[in-house]
Amino acid sequence: MTTNPDPASWLADHRDRLLEGLFTLLRAPSVSTDPAHAGDMRRTAAFLMAHVAGIGLQNVQLLDAGGHPAVYADWLGARAAPTVLLYGHYDVQPPDPLDLWHSPPFEPTIRDGRIYCRGASDDKGPFWTMLCALEAFFATQGGLPVNVKLLLEGEEEVGSRTLPAILQRHGEMLRAEVLISADGSMWRPDLVSVNMNSRGLCALEFSVTTADADLHSGRYGGGVANAVTTLCQIVATLHDADRRVAVEGFFEGLRPPSNLDRASIHAIGFDEAGFLAEIGARPGAVERGVPMLEAMWLRPTLEINGISGGYEGVGTKTVLPHAATAKITCRLGIGQDPVAVADAVERHLQAHCPEYATLRVQRGNDGARAYALPEDNPALLAVERVLETLHGKKPLHVGVGGTLPISSMIKQHLGMETVMMSFAVSDSNVHAPDEFIRLSSFDEGLQAWLLFLPELAASHKGHAV
Amino acid sequence: MTTNPDPASWLADHRDRLLEGLFTLLRAPSVSTDPAHAGDMRRTAAFLMAHVAGIGLQNVQLLDAGGHPAVYADWLGARAAPTVLLYGHYDVQPPDPLDLWHSPPFEPTIRDGRIYCRGASDDKGPFWTMLCALEAFFATQGGLPVNVKLLLEGEEEVGSRTLPAILQRHGEMLRAEVLISADGSMWRPDLVSVNMNSRGLCALEFSVTTADADLHSGRYGGGVANAVTTLCQIVATLHDADRRVAVEGFFEGLRPPSNLDRASIHAIGFDEAGFLAEIGARPGAVERGVPMLEAMWLRPTLEINGISGGYEGVGTKTVLPHAATAKITCRLGIGQDPVAVADAVERHLQAHCPEYATLRVQRGNDGARAYALPEDNPALLAVERVLETLHGKKPLHVGVGGTLPISSMIKQHLGMETVMMSFAVSDSNVHAPDEFIRLSSFDEGLQAWLLFLPELAASHKGHAV
Repeated sequence: MTTNPDPASWLADHRDRLLEGLFTLLRAPSVSTDPAHAGDMRRTAAFLMAHVAGIGLQNVQLLDAGGHPAVYADWLGARAAPTVLLYGHYDVQPPDPLDLWHSPPFEPTIRDGRIYCRGASDDKGPFWTMLCALEAFFATQGGLPVNVKLLLEGEEEVGSRTLPAILQRHGEMLRAEVLISADGSMWRPDLVSVNMNSRGLCALEFSVTTADADLHSGRYGGGVANAVTTLCQIVATLHDADRRVAVEGFFEGLRPPSNLDRASIHAIGFDEAGFLAEIGARPGAVERGVPMLEAMWLRPTLEINGISGGYEGVGTKTVLPHAATAKITCRLGIGQDPVAVADAVERHLQAHCPEYATLRVQRGNDGARAYALPEDNPALLAVERVLETLHGKKPLHVGVGGTLPISSMIKQHLGMETVMMSFAVSDSNVHAPDEFIRLSSFDEGLQAWLLFLPELAASHKGHAV
Repeated sequence: MTTNPDPASWLADHRDRLLEGLFTLLRAPSVSTDPAHAGDMRRTAAFLMAHVAGIGLQNVQLLDAGGHPAVYADWLGARAAPTVLLYGHYDVQPPDPLDLWHSPPFEPTIRDGRIYCRGASDDKGPFWTMLCALEAFFATQGGLPVNVKLLLEGEEEVGSRTLPAILQRHGEMLRAEVLISADGSMWRPDLVSVNMNSRGLCALEFSVTTADADLHSGRYGGGVANAVTTLCQIVATLHDADRRVAVEGFFEGLRPPSNLDRASIHAIGFDEAGFLAEIGARPGAVERGVPMLEAMWLRPTLEINGISGGYEGVGTKTVLPHAATAKITCRLGIGQDPVAVADAVERHLQAHCPEYATLRVQRGNDGARAYALPEDNPALLAVERVLETLHGKKPLHVGVGGTLPISSMIKQHLGMETVMMSFAVSDSNVHAPDEFIRLSSFDEGLQAWLLFLPELAASHKGHAV
C-alpha cells in the first residue's frame, strides 16, 4: 500500500496525464464570438463541470445570464482560512488566419518545448495548471489549504458581455476576500513581474458627411467639401503639438502617478530603444514630458483604430468623397470615468465639425474603468513571496496598458481586488496564429500554484487577507 | 426618278434607319478597361470602319499604338475649305453595378423619349449624330462642305493611354485647323452653353508607417505613434483656415482669371444654393474670397480621393494602426504644370511627416494640363452662331471643372485648339446605371452638325480658320 505523497511529488507522478487533460481541453474549438461554435462552447463547459467535480470541487453549476454560461464550483472546507475566487476563461479567440498556422489550430502540437494550440496561453493552459494544483491537494490531502470558489468564464474574448449580470445575480455566492486571476501574462519573457494596474477603455465611432453621394472631383471640386479632408482636419484637433490629448475635459478625474508608481517604473530600467526596435518603430511619439512606460501603463490615450472613406481600391479614382468614418478608442488612466471621457470626445468632435459637414457619433458600450491594485494587498504579497521563492528575486511591479474589464467589474460589483497570477509569457502569439505556451511555463505554473495556496493560508494567520 | 433632297430632308427621311444604326453600335459592349471585352472592342472598331467607308469617307484605317486602336478616316475633297479633325470615342465605361439598371445596359431601350444604354451619351450617341450629318451631305451632295479627318478613339475611358503615341506617329495625317470634339455635354439641362476651358490633373498616393505591423492599442498605445492619426495630421496641413491649398509652390504658374472669365461667370447668374441643395451639400466649403463657379472651373484643388488604415470592419477593434494610405488628385488651373504641382505636394508631405513616421509617395502618370480655348477661335464662333440659330440666344461660356486630356494632348502634340460640340446633357447618368440620351438631343445634334459644317466653310471664306 502506497502512502499519499506530497502534492509536488503527486504532480510529478501525474504530469503526463495532466498534460493529456489539457490537450483534450485545447482540442475543443470554444470560439465564443462565432455562433457556429455554440455547440463546442456547451461541450467545453460540460467537460469542465465534469472535470472539476471529479477532482473534488463541489456545488458545480453553470451561471447563465443569457450568454455563454460560466462554470462555477467551490470547496469551502478550510475553516479559519481565507476564501479566494479563482478565475479563468474557457473561451478562445477565432483561429483565423488559418493559413499562417504551422500546425492545426485546435490540435495541440509540441515543438521545441512549446505546446502550440489556440488557447494554449489564453487562457486554457494557465487555468489548467491552477486546476492541476487543486487536484494535487485533493488527491494528497483530501482538501485545500484555503477555501476556493472557481469561476471559469465563457465570454472573456467577447468583452465579458453577461459577466456583470452574473455578478449581480450570484454576488453572494461569488464573494471572497480576493479574486486571483489565471488570465494575463508576464510582461516580458526575461523578467518576473506582477501586474499592478490596467487601463480603462471607452469606444466611439464617428462619421462625417458633406453630400448625398460621392461626387465627380472635377465637376464639384472646389465648390463642395471633401468629407475625408474634413474628417482628417477634425482628427488633427484631437492632439496638440506636444502629442497630448487636446480634448477639453478629457483628463477629468485622472489620478496622477504616485511616487510608488514612478519608483516602480524607474526600477525597471526600461530599454526604450530596444523596445521600439523590436516592433520597427522610432522614438519621438510619446507625449512630451511623459516617460514612455508611464505613457503606456498609466497615461490615457486617444487612438484612431481605423479610418475609411472614398475610393480605397487600386489606382486612381477622381472622386470627391461625401462620407468618411473613423473609429476611436481611448485607454483610460486611474480615476477617469469612461462615459465622461466619451462625452468629452463627442463634444469635441461636434465642436470642431465645420458648418458644411454633418458629424454623427455612434457610442460603444459603457466601457471599463482603469484598475489599480493596492500595493499592500495580502494576496499580492503572497504572490510576490512565491515568485521570490521560485526565482530568487523580488518580482518587478508592472502595469498593463490594456484593459482587464474583469478587475473593474469585480471591484464595482463585489468590492474585491484582483491579483493576477499567470505564467504565460507576453511573446506567446496570443490572439494570433501559432499561439503557444512553453512547457516550462506550464511546470512553473504548477509549482507556483502549489506554493501559493499554503502561502495565502499562512499569511491569513498573521493578518486578515 | 427622285431628285436629291437637301441634307435636312434626307435626315428626316432616314431617321429610323440612322437610329437603328446607333442601336447596333450601342449593343456592342465596348468596355475598354476590361480585358474580357477585347473582342468586343475589335468588333466595334471593325463595325465603325465599315460604316464610315460606307457613308463615303476614305483612307479608312486603324491607328494602333499598342492599346485599343483608334479608327481613322478622311475626306479631303473640299478645295479652299478648311480641314477639321472630328473626334469621338467608341469605348464605354463598365456597366456595373448591373442591378441598378432598369433595362439591360447593352440593349438600347426607349422610355419617355430617352434611349437608355451604356454609351448613349458618352460618347456613341453624340458622335453618331456627327456621322449621320456627314452621311447626309455625302448622300445629297456627293461631298462635304469642309475637309474632314475623323478620329474615333478607343481608350478615352482609360485615360487615353496610347493617344500621345498615336499623335506622335500620325501627327501629319491628323493635323487640321481645329479639333471638333463630339464628346462632352451641355453644362446644365436648361442652358445652352459652350465649354471654354477644362482643368488639368495630377495624381499621387502616399502612405505613412510607424511600425512593422498593427499593434495592440493597450500594450503599445502612448509609446508608439498611430499611423492613422499621423496621416490625418499631415492631411490637415494641406489646406489653411481659408480652405486655400497651403502647399508651398502649389500655385506656381497659375494664370489668374481674366476679366472675360469673370464676366462670363457673372453672366450665368449661378444659383449656388439650388446647386448645393440638389446634391445634399451645404454652403461654406469654398475657398474664402473665391466665387463658387470660379472655384469649380478655374481654381486648382487638392482632393483626398480615398483614405484607409487600421480596422475598417464592423464594431470595435482595439488596434494601433501601423500604416495608413491616402490618395490625392489635384485639379489644375490654367498655366500650372502637373509634374511641378505633384513635386510640390510630395515635398510638402515629406516636410510635414514627423520623425517617428515613414512617408512614401507613389506618383501617378504625368497628368494633364488645363486647357483654355481662345474666345476668338473661328470654329468656336461658328459653333456659337449655330447654337444661336437653333435656340434664339447666344450660348453661355462655361468651364469644365473636370479634365479633358484630349484637349491638352492635341494642343501639345499638334498645336491645335479643341472646340466641343456635344448635345448630350449633364444629367444623363454618364458613368452610372441608366445612362441615357434624349431623342430630342439626338435630333438637336443632327440639326446642329448640318448647320455647323457649312457655317465653318462660310466663315473660312471671310478669314482663315
